[in-house]
Amino acid sequence: MKHALSVTRQQNFAAWYQEVISEADLAEESGVRGCMVIRPWGYGMWERIQKLMDAEIKKAGVENCYFPLFIPLSFFEKEADHVEGFAKEMAVVTHHRLVGARNEDGGKGKLIPDPDSKLEEPLVVRPTSETVIGAAMSRWVQSWRDLPLLVNQWANVVRWEMRTRMFLRTSEFLWQEGHTAHVDRDDAMQETMRALEMYRAFAEGPLAMPVVAGEKPENERFPGAVATYSIEAMMQDGKALQAGTSHYLGTGFAEAAGIRYQDKEGGQQYAHTTSWGVSTRMIGGVIMTHGDDDGLRCPPQIAPWQIVIVPMLRDDDGDAAVLDYCRALWKELGALSAFGEPVRVLLDTKAAKAANKRWSWVKKGAPIIVEVGPRDVGEGKAAVLRRDRLYKDDGKLNTAFTLRDDFVGQAAAMLEDIQTALHAEAKARLEANIARDVSDLAAHFKGDEAKFAGWVEVQWARPTGAALDRIVEQLKALKLTVRNAPLDAAPVDGACFFTGEPAVERILIGRTY
Amino acid sequence: MKHALSVTRQQNFAAWYQEVISEADLAEESGVRGCMVIRPWGYGMWERIQKLMDAEIKKAGVENCYFPLFIPLSFFEKEADHVEGFAKEMAVVTHHRLVGARNEDGGKGKLIPDPDSKLEEPLVVRPTSETVIGAAMSRWVQSWRDLPLLVNQWANVVRWEMRTRMFLRTSEFLWQEGHTAHVDRDDAMQETMRALEMYRAFAEGPLAMPVVAGEKPENERFPGAVATYSIEAMMQDGKALQAGTSHYLGTGFAEAAGIRYQDKEGGQQYAHTTSWGVSTRMIGGVIMTHGDDDGLRCPPQIAPWQIVIVPMLRDDDGDAAVLDYCRALWKELGALSAFGEPVRVLLDTKAAKAANKRWSWVKKGAPIIVEVGPRDVGEGKAAVLRRDRLYKDDGKLNTAFTLRDDFVGQAAAMLEDIQTALHAEAKARLEANIARDVSDLAAHFKGDEAKFAGWVEVQWARPTGAALDRIVEQLKALKLTVRNAPLDAAPVDGACFFTGEPAVERILIGRTY
Repeated sequence: MKHALSVTRQQNFAAWYQEVISEADLAEESGVRGCMVIRPWGYGMWERIQKLMDAEIKKAGVENCYFPLFIPLSFFEKEADHVEGFAKEMAVVTHHRLVGARNEDGGKGKLIPDPDSKLEEPLVVRPTSETVIGAAMSRWVQSWRDLPLLVNQWANVVRWEMRTRMFLRTSEFLWQEGHTAHVDRDDAMQETMRALEMYRAFAEGPLAMPVVAGEKPENERFPGAVATYSIEAMMQDGKALQAGTSHYLGTGFAEAAGIRYQDKEGGQQYAHTTSWGVSTRMIGGVIMTHGDDDGLRCPPQIAPWQIVIVPMLRDDDGDAAVLDYCRALWKELGALSAFGEPVRVLLDTKAAKAANKRWSWVKKGAPIIVEVGPRDVGEGKAAVLRRDRLYKDDGKLNTAFTLRDDFVGQAAAMLEDIQTALHAEAKARLEANIARDVSDLAAHFKGDEAKFAGWVEVQWARPTGAALDRIVEQLKALKLTVRNAPLDAAPVDGACFFTGEPAVERILIGRTY
Repeated sequence: MKHALSVTRQQNFAAWYQEVISEADLAEESGVRGCMVIRPWGYGMWERIQKLMDAEIKKAGVENCYFPLFIPLSFFEKEADHVEGFAKEMAVVTHHRLVGARNEDGGKGKLIPDPDSKLEEPLVVRPTSETVIGAAMSRWVQSWRDLPLLVNQWANVVRWEMRTRMFLRTSEFLWQEGHTAHVDRDDAMQETMRALEMYRAFAEGPLAMPVVAGEKPENERFPGAVATYSIEAMMQDGKALQAGTSHYLGTGFAEAAGIRYQDKEGGQQYAHTTSWGVSTRMIGGVIMTHGDDDGLRCPPQIAPWQIVIVPMLRDDDGDAAVLDYCRALWKELGALSAFGEPVRVLLDTKAAKAANKRWSWVKKGAPIIVEVGPRDVGEGKAAVLRRDRLYKDDGKLNTAFTLRDDFVGQAAAMLEDIQTALHAEAKARLEANIARDVSDLAAHFKGDEAKFAGWVEVQWARPTGAALDRIVEQLKALKLTVRNAPLDAAPVDGACFFTGEPAVERILIGRTY
């Protein structure tokens, strides 16, 4: 069976990933170090993610704001753990003017930063906004009545990455960051877990991407956090992708920024803060969860177009009838509703061969592709292709020649079925690839990336400090990390996998991006 | 009559503007030089603007993408006019790492950019994205079939401003920038004018802000553009605010970036490009168009909440009935539709005095404020306050005690009426303050800012080069600038106002922000 991509997942997962991104017009290298261009189909997925996630954020009473891109160094200096975590990867603005646009002849010159425009205090391009939002919160919070304070921003952030991979790790990326302040630990922890649960439900729902929610070990905490929780998704190569995080920050950031409130008894207290975020990395997760050897399979809930109608035109007298038929179909489908929203239908009238268009939409992962030719018009039919079930058992395209009206009647349910089917497929794979009976990690993860070894669940004594460092080093030698301690794991039973001490929790171990 | 603000527009327009922004919780200084924090009510207005404008952009077939924040200097060097226009105000990233997070004792240290992390090629934080989008277009455009290429991005940009004013001129601001490439001048000019018309309709519609659309004189063109068009709005102090621009860029940027296509005859041609943008500055325009001495009056189409219900609670047994009544009202109002969208209704249950809440919403400019007390519940009534008509002639609050069901029946029409009334009021002011019979500019603009002198329309010979420079200098001495040459001005008749040569177009002259 010949596939639309030149490389399969089995052959070379990393090369396959790049090819999906390129062939589905999701993104491309920009020529600017570490930064990508997000193309319309990829950005359309991000717009869908934004729209659905933003509604959840607002439902929780969180208000959107916008905070500065630049953060003065003095803001970072206040929280040493935090800055230590980010100092190695920060873009620093030091000048505010260029000179040299023209050479002495009036022609194009060689630009340099104007030495006379050097800033007294350099500015960092935000890698995350705890410090600058903390400064604002210190102005907004006076009394217990001002709490909880719940804000969020949709923004770009920059972390100077040496090894980048599109959507997964780029120097600039897009995300949302929620920041909240509370009267006490309990209230802040409740918000931390609410955000985590929001992410879990979002991944399992609109992204159709099963995840495991749990707490990160100490060494994987967000710099400055007291506790970090994550959702971890399993990619088709068995690796883990951290797809969202939620942090309980204790009072450390409040002390650094001076977020203090008067309690009901008139005393001064530091607020307890949280932060939580998801990013364009989710798109990378969707690609590696649902993609196949013909490209992306985009979950209908985040597909920019859910149904694409391709008229098969022949540059003859029959074309007008085909187009009329398609326009009427487009209108009827657009009046349908799926997932509580109007169905998004595109009539693709671009000048190109119908077969090329079909394969372009297959690679992009449009959930349903409908082709209409002159014969279909006569018979009142349409050729319907479900992207999640592209081939029949005999390897031929699984096109259903359906009565047009039947298809209109089924289309919304079909979209919802595709969403469910993609999730079920990924869920089965996740469950099948968590090993709980491994006694020798080195043997299980043979060092062969093609093994797609999945994750291992073991129990441990939740070590910290030097005891944890030893285990982390041991895992690192096998290119492994602790992903998280799942919140809904079975109870522990027996000894720590590593040390033989009494175990206190179960953890997932795997390779990662 | 006592107003909610401490300073009136007449007393000190600039101070009034700052007070509206502060009292309406729109934005505040961030502590980061030249950057503001956009607070929930201000950001909510921006979200409304984004939503409505984005729909118009998509309707025109323009696709959203995302391009890098950073632009290498080498990209700018290619277009000398362009870089010259922006070089003086660019934030430059020169390092990618900090050191010094901890001092020798392990305590907090003094951060500095790590000298070993100096970039080989400095990066500019985008002031606008023609160059980096041009580089992408050069990859995407091969043949005439790829044109027109229509993309847009919603993004933050940075222009290092020495004198900043919130929303009007900040170092960082949010905007959309459309960038398009076309086969020839005609097609590009058509897109330039389409975008201009989209902005004009958007300002006059959702913003209720009358504008004059026209062409900028040569000295006010976007750096590198062949022609720049703007919409200009008149603020209540008579000054002009450039509220959106659309540029025809000719082939200059295409030549610099190499955007070339094969035409139908097989020849190689440079594309003709355009760019167009509007920004958070529009919010400043809305404030100065519609604000009054009690704060903002927010046009219903861009109000985050269009109707706010304030229950008058007394901490007694009657409260439950008041809240039930309000909730039922909230539900019914939320099921209504205005401007083709569901009405946005807030039930404000925050713990605060009802009168304080009322004035807080007056200052924010919620279009309709509804107060409900125990007596209203008994009588089936509600106290309705239209923000655009706050006082009666006798200076008392213009509250209408309406039967609740009558109000529900009228609410959607009332919102649409407020939108229309705000526009009509501003339109009448604009028309009344364009003087067409001025012979002495110095006498007309007496240098007294409190005069609110408006604009002057004169005709001229559309000078360029040195002839234009002389006029620009002459106007500058009076703190005046040419705003634009209105597209729908009356025909010229007679001699140039400045030189006596035969006039070729009419222009608007005024003070500006």
